[in-house]
Amino acid sequence: MMIKPGDTIGILGGGQLARMLAVAAARLGLRSHIYAPEAESPAFHVAAAHTVADYGDEAALARFADSVAVVTYEFENVPARTAALLSERRPVRPGAAVLAASQDRLVEKEFINSLGIATAPYAQVDDAGVLARAVAVVGRPCILKARRFGYDGKGQALVREGSDLAGVFRSLRGAPAILEGFVTFDCEISVVAARGEDGEFRAFDVCENLHEHHILTTTTVPSRLPVETAREAIAIAKRIADALLYVGVITVEMFVTRSETENGPVHTIKVNEIAPRVHNSGHWTIDGAVTSQFEQHVRAICGWPLGSTRRHGRIEMRNLIGAEVEQWPGLLREEGACLHLYGKTAVRTGRKMGHVTRILPDETA
Amino acid sequence: MMIKPGDTIGILGGGQLARMLAVAAARLGLRSHIYAPEAESPAFHVAAAHTVADYGDEAALARFADSVAVVTYEFENVPARTAALLSERRPVRPGAAVLAASQDRLVEKEFINSLGIATAPYAQVDDAGVLARAVAVVGRPCILKARRFGYDGKGQALVREGSDLAGVFRSLRGAPAILEGFVTFDCEISVVAARGEDGEFRAFDVCENLHEHHILTTTTVPSRLPVETAREAIAIAKRIADALLYVGVITVEMFVTRSETENGPVHTIKVNEIAPRVHNSGHWTIDGAVTSQFEQHVRAICGWPLGSTRRHGRIEMRNLIGAEVEQWPGLLREEGACLHLYGKTAVRTGRKMGHVTRILPDETA
Repeated sequence: MMIKPGDTIGILGGGQLARMLAVAAARLGLRSHIYAPEAESPAFHVAAAHTVADYGDEAALARFADSVAVVTYEFENVPARTAALLSERRPVRPGAAVLAASQDRLVEKEFINSLGIATAPYAQVDDAGVLARAVAVVGRPCILKARRFGYDGKGQALVREGSDLAGVFRSLRGAPAILEGFVTFDCEISVVAARGEDGEFRAFDVCENLHEHHILTTTTVPSRLPVETAREAIAIAKRIADALLYVGVITVEMFVTRSETENGPVHTIKVNEIAPRVHNSGHWTIDGAVTSQFEQHVRAICGWPLGSTRRHGRIEMRNLIGAEVEQWPGLLREEGACLHLYGKTAVRTGRKMGHVTRILPDETA
Repeated sequence: MMIKPGDTIGILGGGQLARMLAVAAARLGLRSHIYAPEAESPAFHVAAAHTVADYGDEAALARFADSVAVVTYEFENVPARTAALLSERRPVRPGAAVLAASQDRLVEKEFINSLGIATAPYAQVDDAGVLARAVAVVGRPCILKARRFGYDGKGQALVREGSDLAGVFRSLRGAPAILEGFVTFDCEISVVAARGEDGEFRAFDVCENLHEHHILTTTTVPSRLPVETAREAIAIAKRIADALLYVGVITVEMFVTRSETENGPVHTIKVNEIAPRVHNSGHWTIDGAVTSQFEQHVRAICGWPLGSTRRHGRIEMRNLIGAEVEQWPGLLREEGACLHLYGKTAVRTGRKMGHVTRILPDETA
């Protein structure tokens, strides 16, 4: 089915990503229908329609699907049953296979390694007994993570020298888990890219990311990586997207380690994780690129051609987390700062409330 | 009253300007409430709330005003009574004096001339008898325009050699009118600028505009004007905005005539009209400037500081009028073209359906 302006796209989730997707859809003459369980969802403010219902409400899901031309989502933890029910009625993009590959940290790592792409060392941990052996293999420090439904550092426990392994295991409350070794890295990067229905692939320039307490704080573009390392990062994202027959924006987070050799420095890339969606590290594209990641995603899921990823300058994007949002008056006064606030009413520690993008002239462009 | 993120701005009118204002407001964490008489208004799709009611519905206006922190509008023909009713409850920005000065072509021209700024020659025409004398003063060809409620060339009649003046007068159906002489111009320009609550003034670079059948088709930025002429155009806009104690985005359309003198070419500016609002010729700022005209207007009416007007490159903005909107698939494929569609369902001749912005590297920047 050919999607055309005037049609409605359905978005699961009502947070800031859905909000920015809905705005991008409106730019292209599309309407948005947001589906979210929370009655106070920021995306409702910019959508033509919204449904407040649980992701397990089959009748509401059916009505939602029937009201839209295509379904997408702002978060990877869409229950498999929800995706399956919607898929019976409308295309869900990216598709169910992508959700399966990215919802489970173990399946994701196995998939990435199967493409010949490196990840951190890891081991499956299904019971407390296995944990000790896994720690011996992966080495300390390492981190035990629930295989599913984790984000921003939730559902994780650190294993150091002397940690009580039984206690660590209990902290995950019996959830199937994966033990991940640490990667000593020099920088964290992400590739935000899109793959179209016809297989066309376009990546934005590589983003260099800083995290604090597992939450992204700053993205700078371009990264400080050598050109060939940046090119390799994009090639990795393309291999992953192609293998998944991906349609939409995909984000691949990676660690880069620099080591000195007798032939000069060598940069090694390991994939951290895949986000099958628009991503916080791509927010700079709203102000700093010809096409935003949100418009790019909309174009892809509608089966339309992808847009130009050309950058307008050197970029710094900073998240406004929790009480940092109270800096808004100063940011409005700062010359050239592009302020984005997400319309969330309650300020909570660690909650992403907005971001600010700064664009500087790019002498290297 | 200090307006802050989370508050709601009220917008009269539900067309594409209101739609783009609502999106800009959402970026800054504000909600929008759109008030329009048409049940199918494009701006409703991106607003947190909307009211479908006539501009004369006093109860609906009162409820609307009570639900918002500030009121603005997307069109200058807001009835004076509507503006007065709303002003009793909430700030209306730009204010009632601005509406009075811009709704009536005669009052507007007298105001502009009173500032020592040139306009086309004109004369007041209240009856058929006066028309003949006015034509003799202004010269032919000239154009008889209804003083109020005209736009995109509606409510106008041309007077040529041999025109039947009684017939011309009757075509305006007795509306109070103004006869305007033609200005022989070399280019049409506009200055899109903002004035803040504190009197701060910021203009975008001068726009050079092409019209066909009285409808804007193309805007290019920068204009081909010499630097000093562009500076003069901006100074004229500032004088007008200052005289009106203006708050918000104002657009001043001007004609520029070039004449050769023994000291070289001289550029003369005459003001055509004032639009007390965001303007079609400023649409390029969404993609081509750090702050869009829509965000700039929202900042101004909220009493917030104005944003940077820095341009990202050389700009060409083209309107998609009527059936031109059917070019959308090709425009999506065009590298670097930024497509905007307004979500209007019915395609009509002369109707503005969308626009496309092209940004080229600016060697002169």
